[in-house]
Amino acid sequence: MKLSQIGEFGLIDLIRKRFPATDKNLLVGIGDDAAVIKITPERFLIFTTDTLREGVHFDLTYYSHQQVGWKAMAANLSDVAAMGGIPTFGLVSLGLPKNKKTEDVLRIYQGMFGLAKRFGCKLCGGDLFLSSEIVITLTLLGEVEPEFLVRRSGAKPGDLICVTGDLGQSQAGLEIIKNKKSSKPSWLKKHLQPLPRVNEARKLAKTLTLTSMIDISDGLSSDLYHIAEESKVGALIFAQEIPIGRSLLRMASVLRKSPLDLASRSGEEYELLFTIPKTQKEKLQLLKRKTPGLKITLIGEIKEKKEGLKILDSKGKLKKLKKSGYSHF
Amino acid sequence: MKLSQIGEFGLIDLIRKRFPATDKNLLVGIGDDAAVIKITPERFLIFTTDTLREGVHFDLTYYSHQQVGWKAMAANLSDVAAMGGIPTFGLVSLGLPKNKKTEDVLRIYQGMFGLAKRFGCKLCGGDLFLSSEIVITLTLLGEVEPEFLVRRSGAKPGDLICVTGDLGQSQAGLEIIKNKKSSKPSWLKKHLQPLPRVNEARKLAKTLTLTSMIDISDGLSSDLYHIAEESKVGALIFAQEIPIGRSLLRMASVLRKSPLDLASRSGEEYELLFTIPKTQKEKLQLLKRKTPGLKITLIGEIKEKKEGLKILDSKGKLKKLKKSGYSHF
Repeated sequence: MKLSQIGEFGLIDLIRKRFPATDKNLLVGIGDDAAVIKITPERFLIFTTDTLREGVHFDLTYYSHQQVGWKAMAANLSDVAAMGGIPTFGLVSLGLPKNKKTEDVLRIYQGMFGLAKRFGCKLCGGDLFLSSEIVITLTLLGEVEPEFLVRRSGAKPGDLICVTGDLGQSQAGLEIIKNKKSSKPSWLKKHLQPLPRVNEARKLAKTLTLTSMIDISDGLSSDLYHIAEESKVGALIFAQEIPIGRSLLRMASVLRKSPLDLASRSGEEYELLFTIPKTQKEKLQLLKRKTPGLKITLIGEIKEKKEGLKILDSKGKLKKLKKSGYSHF
Repeated sequence: MKLSQIGEFGLIDLIRKRFPATDKNLLVGIGDDAAVIKITPERFLIFTTDTLREGVHFDLTYYSHQQVGWKAMAANLSDVAAMGGIPTFGLVSLGLPKNKKTEDVLRIYQGMFGLAKRFGCKLCGGDLFLSSEIVITLTLLGEVEPEFLVRRSGAKPGDLICVTGDLGQSQAGLEIIKNKKSSKPSWLKKHLQPLPRVNEARKLAKTLTLTSMIDISDGLSSDLYHIAEESKVGALIFAQEIPIGRSLLRMASVLRKSPLDLASRSGEEYELLFTIPKTQKEKLQLLKRKTPGLKITLIGEIKEKKEGLKILDSKGKLKKLKKSGYSHF
């Protein structure tokens, strides 16, 4: 069977079954945003990797070299954040064409280093190789205390489903670029230079009892499916609660597309999707009042597995939640 | 300036200067086989990454998919070994063409997992992406106690230069394959399926006082240059002492090339090149007697930096040691 038939997630499932990783110190393996290794009883190590490849994940007709480096770093920092941790060190493996200008390579590093520095993360080495396109594989380490570690697998029926920020701008920005529609530079920022929610994730993990968390990299609906699969639960989403900003409304009208559809399938948002027990609702309200810069929206409720994943649309109709999102193969 | 003008090592130097990584817990950064991070006063973390790309590092006309996975793992395990450490966990980022057969992908994993397992190393996650060629980036973690950590930077004038195993077979094997010369399967094994010296490195680090160590991945002369640069020393190599096996003599005669030349520029050997103080010579002899399976050859002596890197040839003539080896750009 070819990869185009089995698909990316089918292949991951197969690898997971055939080559399981078990170790008494491996607390989280394949199936989460990052692996987690017990170093001491008080300190866990987060270990994650993510690749951006020219022509697949980005295109230099609309990305600057600095933005490419930034985005590769953002995707990895976001995975550390989704575990409740703090990024510490990183390695970069960089594939480069022979005719690439040295200055452009340094701009890629500037993008990576600049963003990493904001969060106290240090790049400490790596590997360079010849490639016909730019390929950036970043691997980050992070740390998390046992009490703040959040997995995808702890959501329970009755838990509230929350999301940070506004959704949809990343995908809308990409479609505007690709269709060469007119746009404001600020509309494209979420796609080209997203800011990972490292500080916000940490604040959430320290303030609330989070039962699960994931960063929105595949899209709200896909990533909710990941939580549901790992937690063995179902979910109900209220379509009208999905946070849509004013910019997205304008972008959607330029694209002549549904803002809600854009918001639920937009990947590379790097917002946080998380669940909390109902008893944490007051604490959540208090946190929101105390930190006005941090937008958190309650968008649904975790259900029993047998109920599946559903969405209540604006007309009060209950539908199956479409599992949208990107498969590489 | 283009990468083809500045070259791989020129680019690394530039990145190192422009983006230095400093942190009180970062004990070893860019410029060694791996980064080393202090986790506790008694335990240091080794962190290393290495990429193999189809068409650059290997070719499926002579590699099986399993061998590709094996070799990617071997290169990374060898870097952990060169620091004196034990490999623990790994992540793999794998780029694959859409039309690749699922069974071939599983064979790559088999190669990686099989070799990792021999050394107790567990693969615990990663990333998959679409690519026109196979690209494998492996990142490994390892552990090393402070007393066994070996860097490239500690060699001192007067130290003895030693190497494990026999050299030259990897390069000779590659040239035989590429020139379609007839060969025995055993001749190609060192190139296609090298066994990293993880256990040997550990034994050396535990038994001797090693002042520096590196794995031979670029070639004996290139890797000796790396030690000399990091240690700020010179070196003298005795050409007649470079360990050349009987197979290499036969392979060299098939290729009509000098065995000594092959042995000194052959990369991807994954043998260990290390230095010890002269006072350790007796301990070394004792170790060799006690472990007959472990071939160690004394090939030269560390000199003052001003003396440069020289080789005494078989006719007693002193020459500059050529810095051979591969540059990606």
